[in-house]
Amino acid sequence: MIRVTIWNEHVHERREKTVAQLYPDGMHGAIADGLRRELGDQVAIRIATLDEPQHGLTSDVLAETDVMTWWGHDGHDRVDDAVVDRVHERVLQGMGIVVLHSGHHSKIFRRLMGTTCHLRWRSDPGGERELIWTVNPAHPIAAGVPQPIVIPRQEMYGEFFDIPQPDELVFISSFAGGEVFRGGCCFYRGAGRVFYFSPGDQEFPVYHQPEVQRVIANSVRWCASTTPANDVAVGRQHNAQRDWFVR
Amino acid sequence: MIRVTIWNEHVHERREKTVAQLYPDGMHGAIADGLRRELGDQVAIRIATLDEPQHGLTSDVLAETDVMTWWGHDGHDRVDDAVVDRVHERVLQGMGIVVLHSGHHSKIFRRLMGTTCHLRWRSDPGGERELIWTVNPAHPIAAGVPQPIVIPRQEMYGEFFDIPQPDELVFISSFAGGEVFRGGCCFYRGAGRVFYFSPGDQEFPVYHQPEVQRVIANSVRWCASTTPANDVAVGRQHNAQRDWFVR
Amino acid sequence: MIRVTIWNEHVHERREKTVAQLYPDGMHGAIADGLRRELGDQVAIRIATLDEPQHGLTSDVLAETDVMTWWGHDGHDRVDDAVVDRVHERVLQGMGIVVLHSGHHSKIFRRLMGTTCHLRWRSDPGGERELIWTVNPAHPIAAGVPQPIVIPRQEMYGEFFDIPQPDELVFISSFAGGEVFRGGCCFYRGAGRVFYFSPGDQEFPVYHQPEVQRVIANSVRWCASTTPANDVAVGRQHNAQRDWFVR
Amino acid sequence: MIRVTIWNEHVHERREKTVAQLYPDGMHGAIADGLRRELGDQVAIRIATLDEPQHGLTSDVLAETDVMTWWGHDGHDRVDDAVVDRVHERVLQGMGIVVLHSGHHSKIFRRLMGTTCHLRWRSDPGGERELIWTVNPAHPIAAGVPQPIVIPRQEMYGEFFDIPQPDELVFISSFAGGEVFRGGCCFYRGAGRVFYFSPGDQEFPVYHQPEVQRVIANSVRWCASTTPANDVAVGRQHNAQRDWFVR
Repeated sequence: MIRVTIWNEHVHERREKTVAQLYPDGMHGAIADGLRRELGDQVAIRIATLDEPQHGLTSDVLAETDVMTWWGHDGHDRVDDAVVDRVHERVLQGMGIVVLHSGHHSKIFRRLMGTTCHLRWRSDPGGERELIWTVNPAHPIAAGVPQPIVIPRQEMYGEFFDIPQPDELVFISSFAGGEVFRGGCCFYRGAGRVFYFSPGDQEFPVYHQPEVQRVIANSVRWCASTTPANDVAVGRQHNAQRDWFVR
Repeated sequence: MIRVTIWNEHVHERREKTVAQLYPDGMHGAIADGLRRELGDQVAIRIATLDEPQHGLTSDVLAETDVMTWWGHDGHDRVDDAVVDRVHERVLQGMGIVVLHSGHHSKIFRRLMGTTCHLRWRSDPGGERELIWTVNPAHPIAAGVPQPIVIPRQEMYGEFFDIPQPDELVFISSFAGGEVFRGGCCFYRGAGRVFYFSPGDQEFPVYHQPEVQRVIANSVRWCASTTPANDVAVGRQHNAQRDWFVR
Repeated sequence: MIRVTIWNEHVHERREKTVAQLYPDGMHGAIADGLRRELGDQVAIRIATLDEPQHGLTSDVLAETDVMTWWGHDGHDRVDDAVVDRVHERVLQGMGIVVLHSGHHSKIFRRLMGTTCHLRWRSDPGGERELIWTVNPAHPIAAGVPQPIVIPRQEMYGEFFDIPQPDELVFISSFAGGEVFRGGCCFYRGAGRVFYFSPGDQEFPVYHQPEVQRVIANSVRWCASTTPANDVAVGRQHNAQRDWFVR
Repeated sequence: MIRVTIWNEHVHERREKTVAQLYPDGMHGAIADGLRRELGDQVAIRIATLDEPQHGLTSDVLAETDVMTWWGHDGHDRVDDAVVDRVHERVLQGMGIVVLHSGHHSKIFRRLMGTTCHLRWRSDPGGERELIWTVNPAHPIAAGVPQPIVIPRQEMYGEFFDIPQPDELVFISSFAGGEVFRGGCCFYRGAGRVFYFSPGDQEFPVYHQPEVQRVIANSVRWCASTTPANDVAVGRQHNAQRDWFVR
């Protein structure tokens, strides 16, 4: 059983009519539907949003979460630093996190990466075709997805994407305009796993698309595939037997 | 169910009395015992050795193998190139391979690495203490092993070890003489996974040690954790729909 | 002073009229012109081709070469295995090698990679636009090249490209047809450096293009930036003082 | 000419008599001596310390710095966050940084890594022998250093060291007590280069040792080997021609 917390700032869906029509139950609703369809009773899903106290991410919630997904955009700055600290610490202790689309600029992703996470962006109201190519075909996150995945209309994200070199690069996208983007990237941080997946603007029904849902489900499963660490990664601990400290 | 083929050249055990006493059923016997104890009925085990026709590694056997383990030393040169070609192709198509100890100089490991795989070595009849430190504590291959693993007597293998930088470095050993060695290294090649694990000289009862058996079991499971590739990695294939070729 | 050997099979230029018109002095001629323009008297250039005895790659030539460039296609199978062994050994000892375009299927590149090096390919007589995006902007190989480089007409090479994950990924291409390709990849092997650069079909004047010439010059310089190894990578050597062997 | 700023908190040398005797001119003095001996007039050296206004790291100083070295321990918490922000931004824009010893817990290193940077530590007043083994012999940072470097007395730092997997691992240390440590690690962040080098406790004359000075000099040169980025990594910038934004 994987305990998943789907975090969504839930701003655009309540403010913009076009987004509300695409995602009447919020983008988190579509993401939850996809996880349920792909993983069935292998997952227990919880939803948390920006407006809740502590953004719904109390210590208790985090302690009971194996993997989080994170969607944010308009509200990045409104996420409390203390909550970011807590999520960060929990990732390093072994919780997985799947950061989606505009989450590239979230405080938590920048904290984990140590870089600006800036990228190239082009404003284009109608969107354009994105092709998602697998460059690591036997990676569990690519299991059962077509080569390539075609997203009919999507917002362009392009290189240079200012991240550390991914530990595993799974997907590279191209856009109709000719740009490319490392849109599926795995990182190991402490005892936790991080997956960044770029599809998913609020203006397009991307999270209803089965192939995208499959990738998210695969990545949740991949993030949950760690095992309890055999050495401490966090905290000061004294091993009296050998007089070792972690510091 | 993971179908494992344990390959052992089975030379030293039949030629040297001291080795025969340590490993009356061959080193493959001790390795098989460990896999059974750790993985129970999750594994189906087959043994193959140098003296069998085609070294026991026919196309049929390989087709029915998910993960191989490889122990060789004295007989590296007697391994037929055609068999090496076959194993190599099968790894790239998705079979995992766990290369043990002196297997660093086997034809198959050198083929997969593309380097000499030379290392530093010191002759020392009595062996010396090796400590195996985990540098990636949440890696599935380190699950449930102590920090560090202590091997009372072992042959020294030291740096520089001429391999490509591992995709994931799990263990680093130190020896009583002060040398260090990257003794637990993961590599991805094609659709297959490769793990090199250095403990295991024929002169010492290393493969009877439960912690070592656990690492081998963990690595077999890790090697089997690939998923069917969503794109072809091997062979020429024509996709008529888009007029693509793999070449 | 960097001593460069430009190796070209020199088959298409002598056999096909259209290629001969694009490259009257051979592709090696255009590559040499680019190196001279970019690096001036920092380079000493030697040409070697398939038809020469030992393909022009004697032990003496290799001993006097700091970096090779390699272009092959039609004649891959005619390259003698003994010469491949020699080049391979020399790379591991510290010689750099820049493998160009269809050289992805050369014996030497496959030997260094340990994989099939297959890729996706589409036949298209007229070629199509390739955009080469830098994903590592401060890498010396990307110095002074536009973002992106535009190649008006080029043969499509696409993913999945069956190589080990590059140690450093510098360029990703997109094609007008929507495919992507990891077309600028760095690998470290032994004491040597390897750069694969995909542009350059014989049907198009790619090697006359200044931006492409700059990348090749940058990569030659990068390949030459190793320093003498402080430990042996090749050969058996006995250190009497500590009774160490390399094996 | 490489413009180097040697940053030292300069606390222990002024507070503890034993340290003052080892480093009468501060550890920065010994580090500066080493750089001058190894690099001569290839470097211009500036010193900055914790007690100076803005810790000596004004925007002007950073703008004129190609590579920083950072030694801190007791005063980590006293380093102003605004200064850390500024150094961080400057690294991502291309300034190199060599983080020394207890600097593993500095704010700037933790910011760049995104992890706790905790490590194993054993209190041992007299210190113990450290051997520094090169695992990447042709790396420029290992140029001209013995295999291994012997440090007669040093404080033990051991694994697990909670850092992202290094982009290039150059050195691994062993200690007389049997522990190992990834003590020479390269990271690329934005347009900048980061090198962590573990030797150098204030209680021992490590920074006077010529081999250690050589590694620091090599790493300064390596950090300065970037080239101006060919794409923006920091800041919002609008490219009117293609209507691109960096965000």
